[in-house]
Amino acid sequence: MLQRGLGGLVSHRHAKSLLRALAGQPPLPRSAWMPAQPITVSSSHFQSNIKDYSIPNASWSPVMVGLYNELMEKTVDGSWTRLPGCWRSLQLLKEADLARIAKAVPIQMIEDARLFLRITDTERLGFEYVIFHSDSEKKCVCLFQPGPLLEGLPGIIHGGALGTMIDTTFFATAYYSANAVFTGTMTITFRSPVILGSVVRLEATVTGTEGRKVFLSCEAQNSDGTILFAEASAIFFQMK
Amino acid sequence: MLQRGLGGLVSHRHAKSLLRALAGQPPLPRSAWMPAQPITVSSSHFQSNIKDYSIPNASWSPVMVGLYNELMEKTVDGSWTRLPGCWRSLQLLKEADLARIAKAVPIQMIEDARLFLRITDTERLGFEYVIFHSDSEKKCVCLFQPGPLLEGLPGIIHGGALGTMIDTTFFATAYYSANAVFTGTMTITFRSPVILGSVVRLEATVTGTEGRKVFLSCEAQNSDGTILFAEASAIFFQMK
Repeated sequence: MLQRGLGGLVSHRHAKSLLRALAGQPPLPRSAWMPAQPITVSSSHFQSNIKDYSIPNASWSPVMVGLYNELMEKTVDGSWTRLPGCWRSLQLLKEADLARIAKAVPIQMIEDARLFLRITDTERLGFEYVIFHSDSEKKCVCLFQPGPLLEGLPGIIHGGALGTMIDTTFFATAYYSANAVFTGTMTITFRSPVILGSVVRLEATVTGTEGRKVFLSCEAQNSDGTILFAEASAIFFQMK
Repeated sequence: MLQRGLGGLVSHRHAKSLLRALAGQPPLPRSAWMPAQPITVSSSHFQSNIKDYSIPNASWSPVMVGLYNELMEKTVDGSWTRLPGCWRSLQLLKEADLARIAKAVPIQMIEDARLFLRITDTERLGFEYVIFHSDSEKKCVCLFQPGPLLEGLPGIIHGGALGTMIDTTFFATAYYSANAVFTGTMTITFRSPVILGSVVRLEATVTGTEGRKVFLSCEAQNSDGTILFAEASAIFFQMK
């Protein structure tokens, strides 16, 4: 999910101010081009829009809700956890991790930014998804219902949108199972087309580690596992 | 860009009606879940929203506009072509190709669908991009200015958004240079983080063919080529 600075990793000059909880600045009107305006993190950034987007809504199909309920049952004994669907990665990352990331990558606050998967927040139209994590199995399962704004060929999901969901499932697995947040290399093989509005079940697993490298694999299938939509592998890197 | 049905390629039962230019049906209200409603293609689908999104607008930075003007100069003698920025892939594909694709992939019309890269059509916020193609060099150059809604880490582009732009540049190269539209396998290695609002220059080339397979490579760099953001390779498949 998160891009990595392998080569010229810059220590971030805004790191301190970024982590200070200062009062928010009013957003600038930006109808015409101007350089990005880094702002300091205010407590409102952590608190604003704390809606959980990974709870069933009226746009979820009965198949999607059925799979959700099955996975929720696995959370009862604590072996699996449902991850909340956030508005920005800032809400997802532990504050200590954010400080470590800021040493490696020039992160900054932009007032109107939001997580790519939240690019539309109207129910049904974009990325409807929920991710469950099992710590003991070092695994995540993602249920994903792509909306009509994720189109490639008419009525079919864009490869980049499925790739985004795969990357995000990899990220959740790498972060919660192995403390890795930086995507190094990702390979995706597309096997069958995904029709918009259908349900995709993604399952990603940590397959090994080597130094700071974390190796993962992922399969995206239909709801009953009879169609393989895509398979993927990735190398993530742990934070220093 | 476009997903492929490698395994159980289905001949599409809607193919004929899909290609008939019938009068449009009114969109259905779909506040709650219901199955996708395939509709027939009307002439309005080809004509509606013919705005060209790949022309400079007020949100493009001076660097983006400068690179655009340089590439536009190369179009004067016809060696390079600027590709129009469309609203749906339907507007991009030749009608005869759409019929061939429909034999391999169950494409269908969904009333409120649109190309993933057009998920937001407000200037600056999403994918601002333009692609140029050289037929003789079997190459595309894409200029890309990612907006604040494409965020992964705070202020940094989401790997899935950069992957979407890479996939799209691959697609344009594969389609216009080698008549291939189906992404088979794509590998991306992320090298440096891309800051939202900065300019990315992607260059993709056909490196070889083997039967219906088309091999491609791509590099994503900053505007003056001093930072490598990502490198990628892909295999696309030609239509039968």
